[in-house]
Amino acid sequence: MRTMSNRVAILGASGYTGLELIRLLLRHPEVVLTALGTRQEENPHVAEVHPQLTGQLDLRLEPLTPKQLAQRADTVFCCLPHAASAEAVAQLRELDLDVIDLSADYRLRDKDVYEQWYGVTHPDADRLPDAVYGLPELYRAQIKAAHLVANPGCYPTSAILALYPLLKAGLISPAGINIDSKSGVSGGGRTPKPVFHYPECNESLMAYGVGTHRHMPEIDQFLTEAAGEPVEVLFTPHLVPMDRGILSTCYATPIGDATTETLMAALREAYADEPFVDVVDAPPTTKHVAYTNRCHVTARVVRGRALVISAIDNLIKGASGAAVQNFNLMNGFKETTALV
Amino acid sequence: MRTMSNRVAILGASGYTGLELIRLLLRHPEVVLTALGTRQEENPHVAEVHPQLTGQLDLRLEPLTPKQLAQRADTVFCCLPHAASAEAVAQLRELDLDVIDLSADYRLRDKDVYEQWYGVTHPDADRLPDAVYGLPELYRAQIKAAHLVANPGCYPTSAILALYPLLKAGLISPAGINIDSKSGVSGGGRTPKPVFHYPECNESLMAYGVGTHRHMPEIDQFLTEAAGEPVEVLFTPHLVPMDRGILSTCYATPIGDATTETLMAALREAYADEPFVDVVDAPPTTKHVAYTNRCHVTARVVRGRALVISAIDNLIKGASGAAVQNFNLMNGFKETTALV
Amino acid sequence: MRTMSNRVAILGASGYTGLELIRLLLRHPEVVLTALGTRQEENPHVAEVHPQLTGQLDLRLEPLTPKQLAQRADTVFCCLPHAASAEAVAQLRELDLDVIDLSADYRLRDKDVYEQWYGVTHPDADRLPDAVYGLPELYRAQIKAAHLVANPGCYPTSAILALYPLLKAGLISPAGINIDSKSGVSGGGRTPKPVFHYPECNESLMAYGVGTHRHMPEIDQFLTEAAGEPVEVLFTPHLVPMDRGILSTCYATPIGDATTETLMAALREAYADEPFVDVVDAPPTTKHVAYTNRCHVTARVVRGRALVISAIDNLIKGASGAAVQNFNLMNGFKETTALV
Amino acid sequence: MRTMSNRVAILGASGYTGLELIRLLLRHPEVVLTALGTRQEENPHVAEVHPQLTGQLDLRLEPLTPKQLAQRADTVFCCLPHAASAEAVAQLRELDLDVIDLSADYRLRDKDVYEQWYGVTHPDADRLPDAVYGLPELYRAQIKAAHLVANPGCYPTSAILALYPLLKAGLISPAGINIDSKSGVSGGGRTPKPVFHYPECNESLMAYGVGTHRHMPEIDQFLTEAAGEPVEVLFTPHLVPMDRGILSTCYATPIGDATTETLMAALREAYADEPFVDVVDAPPTTKHVAYTNRCHVTARVVRGRALVISAIDNLIKGASGAAVQNFNLMNGFKETTALV
Repeated sequence: MRTMSNRVAILGASGYTGLELIRLLLRHPEVVLTALGTRQEENPHVAEVHPQLTGQLDLRLEPLTPKQLAQRADTVFCCLPHAASAEAVAQLRELDLDVIDLSADYRLRDKDVYEQWYGVTHPDADRLPDAVYGLPELYRAQIKAAHLVANPGCYPTSAILALYPLLKAGLISPAGINIDSKSGVSGGGRTPKPVFHYPECNESLMAYGVGTHRHMPEIDQFLTEAAGEPVEVLFTPHLVPMDRGILSTCYATPIGDATTETLMAALREAYADEPFVDVVDAPPTTKHVAYTNRCHVTARVVRGRALVISAIDNLIKGASGAAVQNFNLMNGFKETTALV
Repeated sequence: MRTMSNRVAILGASGYTGLELIRLLLRHPEVVLTALGTRQEENPHVAEVHPQLTGQLDLRLEPLTPKQLAQRADTVFCCLPHAASAEAVAQLRELDLDVIDLSADYRLRDKDVYEQWYGVTHPDADRLPDAVYGLPELYRAQIKAAHLVANPGCYPTSAILALYPLLKAGLISPAGINIDSKSGVSGGGRTPKPVFHYPECNESLMAYGVGTHRHMPEIDQFLTEAAGEPVEVLFTPHLVPMDRGILSTCYATPIGDATTETLMAALREAYADEPFVDVVDAPPTTKHVAYTNRCHVTARVVRGRALVISAIDNLIKGASGAAVQNFNLMNGFKETTALV
Repeated sequence: MRTMSNRVAILGASGYTGLELIRLLLRHPEVVLTALGTRQEENPHVAEVHPQLTGQLDLRLEPLTPKQLAQRADTVFCCLPHAASAEAVAQLRELDLDVIDLSADYRLRDKDVYEQWYGVTHPDADRLPDAVYGLPELYRAQIKAAHLVANPGCYPTSAILALYPLLKAGLISPAGINIDSKSGVSGGGRTPKPVFHYPECNESLMAYGVGTHRHMPEIDQFLTEAAGEPVEVLFTPHLVPMDRGILSTCYATPIGDATTETLMAALREAYADEPFVDVVDAPPTTKHVAYTNRCHVTARVVRGRALVISAIDNLIKGASGAAVQNFNLMNGFKETTALV
Repeated sequence: MRTMSNRVAILGASGYTGLELIRLLLRHPEVVLTALGTRQEENPHVAEVHPQLTGQLDLRLEPLTPKQLAQRADTVFCCLPHAASAEAVAQLRELDLDVIDLSADYRLRDKDVYEQWYGVTHPDADRLPDAVYGLPELYRAQIKAAHLVANPGCYPTSAILALYPLLKAGLISPAGINIDSKSGVSGGGRTPKPVFHYPECNESLMAYGVGTHRHMPEIDQFLTEAAGEPVEVLFTPHLVPMDRGILSTCYATPIGDATTETLMAALREAYADEPFVDVVDAPPTTKHVAYTNRCHVTARVVRGRALVISAIDNLIKGASGAAVQNFNLMNGFKETTALV
């Protein structure tokens, strides 16, 4: 085990995942937040950017060079947009900093798939093999040894936790999986846009990114791993008028004589020792996991079809909470520290 | 064509569909609201029950006998719970009143299916063959001649309008249809219950009635008719934190070389002359149909699967607006009267 | 009475008041919408700008010159920002078009007050004496004869309807009036801004414009008229997480032995013949007037203080509904046409 | 200092303040939750009552006698309704248990005032002098020595923190204070009622309890203490469509030449060392304090009137967070433990 890290920096601290990370890390007894990065020049106090933190953290947001970060921090959480993130991560890793990257840049193993879906050249493709996908329920051992963790997307977290064990156990068919996901609006980030303008999205509901959402190949990749054969899901996200939460309702074809009971048993076995995944009997409800790092999941066989439903908080288990969970694993802290 | 009816009564006027009916009928130039029924005894003024109607309608809610109704009204809108509704309707039809029934009692053609799903003996099964299902997009001619209309369920309206033309045209397979529907909370009625308590369902999302919702056989019945062979859908409703609106995201298997274009063309052809159904290119958004009698629908083929999405206002196109549309058809009024 | 106008144009049709005007006017049996103006160049179809209108109106938004407007319309509703509005109105009036101006440009009688609060030179100050303030409850006769109506602000409508009759009747003191108003987010317009970004204003509440809101002098002006002596209110608006509605809770000092009963009697007398103002016993609730042109108002004397509370829909009675009401009065239509 | 307590029980654990207490106490390193009381008989598991706690706490809710509580706990948090609470507290104190009472029973010093406003005979009036009002910003020293703490009401917390220092400093007049408060719906408790039915209170806003709300005498009592002369406020609460948060907008008359600067200086001085009160420049926003134990407060002088605005989370600083803060003080723990 490494020496315990406790000096932490956050790049891209002005968004919602940045705020949530700060909130969680302020509860972490072994962490000192030392630097908050921004690409803007004004050096605002963190309480100007996040009035929620008034009186709780006395730091300014700064444009930080990799060298400055290396002097001040042992671990960097990177909350930058894709491509910008990999550019920063490349430099931070050269300086031997541990990095937890909340962007999509190191999630897809195949550079070509990345470039096709994200429409940019990958700035740091050579490092892809070094990155570990930060879903502890799948890769806990690897995360413990990692220096670069690709923090999972919010939708993929909900979909993979629902379906991975059932594909692995051969209980559902890899073909024809439909994932109908619904997310609160914070998942869209902090930049004002017409679609997130309150009077437009309040009291409304719509599907978006139909057939084009970038989380689709990320889900495919890990379900393919679970199934041992190519999986191509149809993933359809929806925007729901609430701040937080993702509910994924997954439709699949059961194999053989799989029943509600066999599906539930497989989920219970997979998650028996997991600190943050609960297999529940009633349909999961996003409010029951909001503001927590937990995932609730259930399964049914109805009319010959398998239905698997999971709920998470998109900003916590779907982003910043998972990042802290990964940080704890990487640094030998108790996995649940700051996450209860 | 009959003599134009204009004396109208509403039974079960204290709920949300009752309120919405009154609002719409107050805009109808040929209608006089003459009686509002309730099963309670207090005879409250309608503005006490619905403060929204203050200054707009001077009627009291009363416990009304069929005979009283026959003296005061030509048409009765019946917004009672299932079973109670059929008991009332039976008497009203004996007295030769036209009835538009917003309950589920006359929607299912097979008494046994009704009794299995609703868990009660049908109080008026002999009349089932006389009832016309009040979806003008399917049965306009029959509605014009009907004296008893079974107003469709809110979820079935959204699902049938999305899928009927595509099954009819043989573009999607009758097997394996999954309907993932999301509804605003007014769909649950006006009686306070824990699940509808504001701090429970606000900022939350969940599936409910998984595999057991009573709208499932209603959807089956009409999609079976469209397909010409038995259809068994998996229908999964969700509760969304908003007042109004249903979005149904329907997953099906395209037949042959069906494409987005062929699906859209079939929808456009089916609804070319419909006053209230719009085939739209962008994903339908419930806000765009809220407080209207309209349905927006679109279709896609993605990764070899067909996706059909529809949006309605559950209280208007999904209930009271459709009822007024049926009333207009039954009485020879312009179909859109009071519904623009 | 003039010839009945029926050709109507809307300038600034892409915002929320524009949408609401179109919705209402589509219900008006004597109106033909002939032109929709925009300052942008793309000439989008109205259904692209307002998908709510799909299938209901086949017009494009255009940059329209005053001359074009004069050829196509008899009346213009002007929904432009302040100053831009007066520039357009000046030209339209020169061409003898009737104008209902929804901006603030003709509401304040004193050009200096306008220029002080709005920070711009008034582009058409000479015309201020010709404009009639479009609050029918105060100026119905003048509106009937007017060719330029200054449609009231949303907050002033709620405050003036609450307080005018009580000041006029000498029941409350002109000194020390505090108006605590709360508005839904649509009042902030359609342009995305951080403060209206869903995850910022959802599940939140704040005061804004404390001591600086531009509706303060507008309220002062009319309450001064009611009192017959200078009134300076303290007006504090709040942003509430809902689409629509304004609730104004007004605090004043009762004069002499004014009681709840005398205040209520004065309100009832003032509004006895008003088609859209209801004096109610229970505290007004914005939902009870949402999507209507109505105002609910009540009053109490508690612990020696007078409390007057009013509720309106900010986009209807507070903007577009009032505009249609004024249009009806100006053109000899029944005042309630299109507003039930 | 006493021996550190760590065995804690909660009576009335099935409501929202109970849930919030459990959540906070699960983060407290020195606390073991040993018993959860209910007045119902079914002994449900806490995760059935609060699915949010699935996997986090393995306790059942039980009907507990005072003796059982004395065996299992050192401190009891009492979340029962008024009157029922005092009956339980009396017995618990006889058994020498420390009690933090979240009901209103020990907040008012004068039994007659209590009985007048609550309409019941006080079941334990003799103990009133022993209770300390649990607002640490006013009574920290007394709380440290207390064995019975009366946890403040949510509205009073927001109003007293806003006004106490200004009255104490003689900067605002004790006469004519109006407090316009707005609360999220969780303040109404967990029992379904028509007024809290989602489709009734969503997208709506109203005043309630006008002139009759029971928090009025509680506010009076402490502002009277601050002023050194009788204070009678007019307190008007409003129900806002959001889960959490109270915003109190307080109107008062400044004394002498008090300015924004003198008011702000007095607030800053009063709260300089407070861990949970922030004097802020911008208008407080409930979202900035939601899910925290903090209070944001600001003041202005506008048009000769003083305006003081405060924001808290009604369930945390307004209830359960304050209770934990009091618990920490009573037991010699760091005041902020479990509250960051």
